[in-house]
Amino acid sequence: MKVLAVIAVCAAVVGLVVALILAMWIKGSDQGTDRMKEISGYIREGAFAFLKREYKIMAIVIIVLALAIGIGLQSVTTAILYVFGAVLSVLAGFFGMNVATWGNVRTACAAKEHGMNKALKIAFRSGAVMGLAVAGLGLFGLGIVVVCLDLATVVQCVTGFGFGASSMALFGRVGGGIYTKAADVGADLVGKVEAGIPEDDPRNPAVIADNVGDNVGDVAGMGSDLYESYCGSIISAITLAAVAAGASGGLFDEAAAAIFPLIMAAVGIIASIIGILLVRGKERSNPANALNAGTYIASIIVIIVACILSKLMLGSITFAIAIIAGLIVGVAIGKITEIYTSEDYQSVKKIAEQSQTGSATTIISGLGVGMMSTVWPIICISIGIFAAYFATETVGAGMGMYGIALAAVGMLSTTGMTVAVDAYGPVSDNAGGIAEMAELPEGVRNITDKLDSVGNTTAAIGKGFAIGSAALTALALFASYAAVTGLSAISLLSPIVIIGLFIGAMLPFMFSAFTMNSVGKAANQMIEEVRRQFRTDDGILAGTSKPDYAHCVDISTQAALKEMIVPGLMAIIAPLAVGIVLGPEALGGMLAGALAAGVLLALMMANAGGAWDNAKKFVEGGAYGGKGSDTHKATVVGDTVGDPFKDTSGPSINILIKLMTIVSVVFAPLFVAIDGLIG
Amino acid sequence: MKVLAVIAVCAAVVGLVVALILAMWIKGSDQGTDRMKEISGYIREGAFAFLKREYKIMAIVIIVLALAIGIGLQSVTTAILYVFGAVLSVLAGFFGMNVATWGNVRTACAAKEHGMNKALKIAFRSGAVMGLAVAGLGLFGLGIVVVCLDLATVVQCVTGFGFGASSMALFGRVGGGIYTKAADVGADLVGKVEAGIPEDDPRNPAVIADNVGDNVGDVAGMGSDLYESYCGSIISAITLAAVAAGASGGLFDEAAAAIFPLIMAAVGIIASIIGILLVRGKERSNPANALNAGTYIASIIVIIVACILSKLMLGSITFAIAIIAGLIVGVAIGKITEIYTSEDYQSVKKIAEQSQTGSATTIISGLGVGMMSTVWPIICISIGIFAAYFATETVGAGMGMYGIALAAVGMLSTTGMTVAVDAYGPVSDNAGGIAEMAELPEGVRNITDKLDSVGNTTAAIGKGFAIGSAALTALALFASYAAVTGLSAISLLSPIVIIGLFIGAMLPFMFSAFTMNSVGKAANQMIEEVRRQFRTDDGILAGTSKPDYAHCVDISTQAALKEMIVPGLMAIIAPLAVGIVLGPEALGGMLAGALAAGVLLALMMANAGGAWDNAKKFVEGGAYGGKGSDTHKATVVGDTVGDPFKDTSGPSINILIKLMTIVSVVFAPLFVAIDGLIG
Repeated sequence: MKVLAVIAVCAAVVGLVVALILAMWIKGSDQGTDRMKEISGYIREGAFAFLKREYKIMAIVIIVLALAIGIGLQSVTTAILYVFGAVLSVLAGFFGMNVATWGNVRTACAAKEHGMNKALKIAFRSGAVMGLAVAGLGLFGLGIVVVCLDLATVVQCVTGFGFGASSMALFGRVGGGIYTKAADVGADLVGKVEAGIPEDDPRNPAVIADNVGDNVGDVAGMGSDLYESYCGSIISAITLAAVAAGASGGLFDEAAAAIFPLIMAAVGIIASIIGILLVRGKERSNPANALNAGTYIASIIVIIVACILSKLMLGSITFAIAIIAGLIVGVAIGKITEIYTSEDYQSVKKIAEQSQTGSATTIISGLGVGMMSTVWPIICISIGIFAAYFATETVGAGMGMYGIALAAVGMLSTTGMTVAVDAYGPVSDNAGGIAEMAELPEGVRNITDKLDSVGNTTAAIGKGFAIGSAALTALALFASYAAVTGLSAISLLSPIVIIGLFIGAMLPFMFSAFTMNSVGKAANQMIEEVRRQFRTDDGILAGTSKPDYAHCVDISTQAALKEMIVPGLMAIIAPLAVGIVLGPEALGGMLAGALAAGVLLALMMANAGGAWDNAKKFVEGGAYGGKGSDTHKATVVGDTVGDPFKDTSGPSINILIKLMTIVSVVFAPLFVAIDGLIG
Repeated sequence: MKVLAVIAVCAAVVGLVVALILAMWIKGSDQGTDRMKEISGYIREGAFAFLKREYKIMAIVIIVLALAIGIGLQSVTTAILYVFGAVLSVLAGFFGMNVATWGNVRTACAAKEHGMNKALKIAFRSGAVMGLAVAGLGLFGLGIVVVCLDLATVVQCVTGFGFGASSMALFGRVGGGIYTKAADVGADLVGKVEAGIPEDDPRNPAVIADNVGDNVGDVAGMGSDLYESYCGSIISAITLAAVAAGASGGLFDEAAAAIFPLIMAAVGIIASIIGILLVRGKERSNPANALNAGTYIASIIVIIVACILSKLMLGSITFAIAIIAGLIVGVAIGKITEIYTSEDYQSVKKIAEQSQTGSATTIISGLGVGMMSTVWPIICISIGIFAAYFATETVGAGMGMYGIALAAVGMLSTTGMTVAVDAYGPVSDNAGGIAEMAELPEGVRNITDKLDSVGNTTAAIGKGFAIGSAALTALALFASYAAVTGLSAISLLSPIVIIGLFIGAMLPFMFSAFTMNSVGKAANQMIEEVRRQFRTDDGILAGTSKPDYAHCVDISTQAALKEMIVPGLMAIIAPLAVGIVLGPEALGGMLAGALAAGVLLALMMANAGGAWDNAKKFVEGGAYGGKGSDTHKATVVGDTVGDPFKDTSGPSINILIKLMTIVSVVFAPLFVAIDGLIG
């Protein structure tokens, strides 16, 4: 058993070494002109200024929560694992974002010097470093925990590791999400709309903050979200291993059940590396094909190996069904997301068409698309749950929940590849920004635009995947919660559960209201600052004096970190309050309500936002009067509403549902003790 | 027991007689000039054209569903009660709308001849007729059922009556909602925006359809919604009576428990009559005060009598707590709704302020307000459930669910009064339209505007109340569902329940997407038609020739009835499909998921819509540049998005959650039988 855990750690190390080699390869690539270096320097500087400030606050949060865990639960091990999980998340974010800020300028340079093929390679490999860092550090950390501790302690304390991952994801996704949209909306409203200068124009004081936002929100934020899911799924499988072993009738023991998810994660990392190295663009072909090919190859490898290992380790091929179900659901949700948000399909075209009668119909039809887009993902998730549960339940009654955890592990096994494809988008986007600001020839911008356009689709797919994985991970952790509390049923016929359900369903709405307002407030500060700079120095718009980029970066940084306090506290306090006041059963209802309503709201917001974005692009491509027409103006309104939808509030809900569930699992012993005292 | 049921029937008859007297009093009032009579004639004609067409389709639906019940459940009695419940709903709608179309022109005339006081009286009494018709016919029907059948048959078959009420509410609320917004949006976009003529201008071909919409949507539709809740709450209490009696340890028998809600409803009708008769406007005072006074008086009467009867009939005053909890929650939700949607409070002002940066920020801040506005209603509902359940549970273990049903009965006991206040709004609105079209002096329009402005607030409050009552009624029926299926637990730890929960949470989103698209499609047809009339006959805009009102009415009618087919079928088929395929436990999960997500979505949509509406009015009142400013244009976009939110999709969700629950209760024996065959 320990041997297998060591193998998992080794696979993680391989992933990290590959990430390091890729990073060095990227660093060694050409950075282009001095002007390009200068601009990319600003972006790096801004990104690290944000990280530095964020880390200071994080450090305090980590210490406070570690103390809370240590004292509240009387468990030093859990507290230490909490810190370990959090620190590795921070490392993954730091490493990934560092390389992303190397990658952007080098992608622009490659587009200039070598063309599409090389540019795609650099952008994608920059994303791949983030992907392998997320999966590698997640598996490394959990592997080390299993190697170093005895199994009973692991089961008891490993949720602390997950809590660490979750609380850092809160900063990454929510803070990053507010940052990126405050900068984006601020830059657009004053720069494009008021001053009439193009996007990514170096005269816009907020332009650097906008590019920094792509890195802190779409690279680091998204990475922390999937790191959380990745660790959460494995952790829930580990905590359910004892239940599974008991139900297997001697087919396998707890150790085998606990180590299987780690080994599958190891397989996923190796498969991801193979997929990543096989991604090669061809001149004049669609970059999406190369990315898809990599994903499919990685998935097929996992599927084949899962069948073999399921039989070898757990004595039945059935467990592979759960893994495969999860993997297929993940890919399917991605594809469905594409259908609702890509301009190649009907929904986006319909929004553009409806925009002819003004922005009100843009909004109504976009919301309609967002709502409708929830149907198939929910059906897919339901089928996935059904398949994973009943396949494993046939092996032994009571084992089904372990099967659901395995489905989550399966879905997330190729996280390295998924994050790579996803993070490729913002790197390309940044490369385009640098090309624009450095006034590179139009041909360069054409290449980066093509890369960016594919990146928009992969970003939308990545968002769908992130929501699906959050749903499955939260559900698996919910099963762990039941196991830890020892509840045999959480019945909807109990009014306390119904009350929990109502409160739980309300929380994602409240949380989204907070995050949307936060973006609004932060964007307003940015707008004021940009206006102030234009007003006090005429040279900025004339192009004779340099705007104060750093101040705008500073505003976004401060606002993002300040504005995430309330929603962040809410996510941690709500489960504690309900668990303590109403008891563990009501908390179960609350988690289920938040999960169900949260997934729906997140899907609706992310997909409506993606659809609006592409409806605007569709009109910009020449439909219904093209750029500058009234229809275009209407779609711009849709896109602006969609920005916080798809990049702040929607993705933040992923964090909310996972974080509340992991808080509940970690503090479950406390709730049970209090409930015992009262009842 | 039969004697008490006869008393309930008598109270219902008293309510109906008072309604008739009020109706005759209204009919006897002065109708004003020939022009006023002509216009009001068009509105009546249009309204009845809609009803006539609707009734034809309804007749087919009633026959088909009655056959389905009779054959599927082998119960002729249930089928007959289904028809009975449906026919009484139709009668209430017909009677109420008839009087509302009498009341509008007479309100305008009273404003012209006698001033505010008399105008308020006529408008309010027109609404009161609808209110007393709803409560009177509901209680009359259920009373007759209890008088004529033995208790065992009542318990077994009375849900058929509720299903009848629900399926008619589907037509009323969903069909009416689509009608009214198609006409409204169509009239506004071409008339106000394109042709630049004022609201309610007789040159606008869609103006009559718009006024008809107020009657079919806001009077008849809302009435059918509350008729459904009213009957549903009493029915669920009756079906849970046996459980309650069993748990009471001999304190009371099933008959007493079954008759108590009927008697409380009877008390509510008498209290409503008293409240209605006490509403008297004073010149130069705010009409809202008079309306509020009536509501409070009716509520206090119910509270006092509930305490006495609870002790007398059920041997403990505890049951009054459940009744009172429901009543207070209803009033509280109304007040909270007012805070989020009235221009006197912060939220609406904030939306207006944010609108200065354009329509995108109008939408974002309005959605934020809508989401935030869900928090307190959910907390109120939770507290209400808690109080009602645990108060009654102290009397006997297992009685709590009966307590929740009583809370719903309590909340809805003053339905006569609530509907009166609510329906008063559209009557005043219509009166204003008639005053405008008949070119009455400005002083008249000032009075109707004042009445209408209060009507907007009462309408928003009524929507909040309708959602709250739908939630409590659906929950009570959910308890009946559990009792009928004999499920002792519906555990969230069963994956099939979780799948049901996910699907259930998805349905309100899907349903809302359907209804929003329906409004869009129907409005587009209306826009085409108005444009066509303006194009083919120049005399219309010049005021020399009369537009073809009837054709616009016809378009709205056809579109509304056609567009409601898909969402309507969905609401009936979804529970049947899940119940048959996945079994009664999964269906329980689905109902809970739809209830939780549906209430949240409905609150968000209704309140965002109300807030946008009043933000526009606030700007029109002179804030931020007033009418015609860019800020005003931005708020118009918000209002247009809000129209289908608050008047179609939001309220339609009430019907969805109640209808799906009652379908589940009615067909529960079938699901259990099928489940037994398979399992």
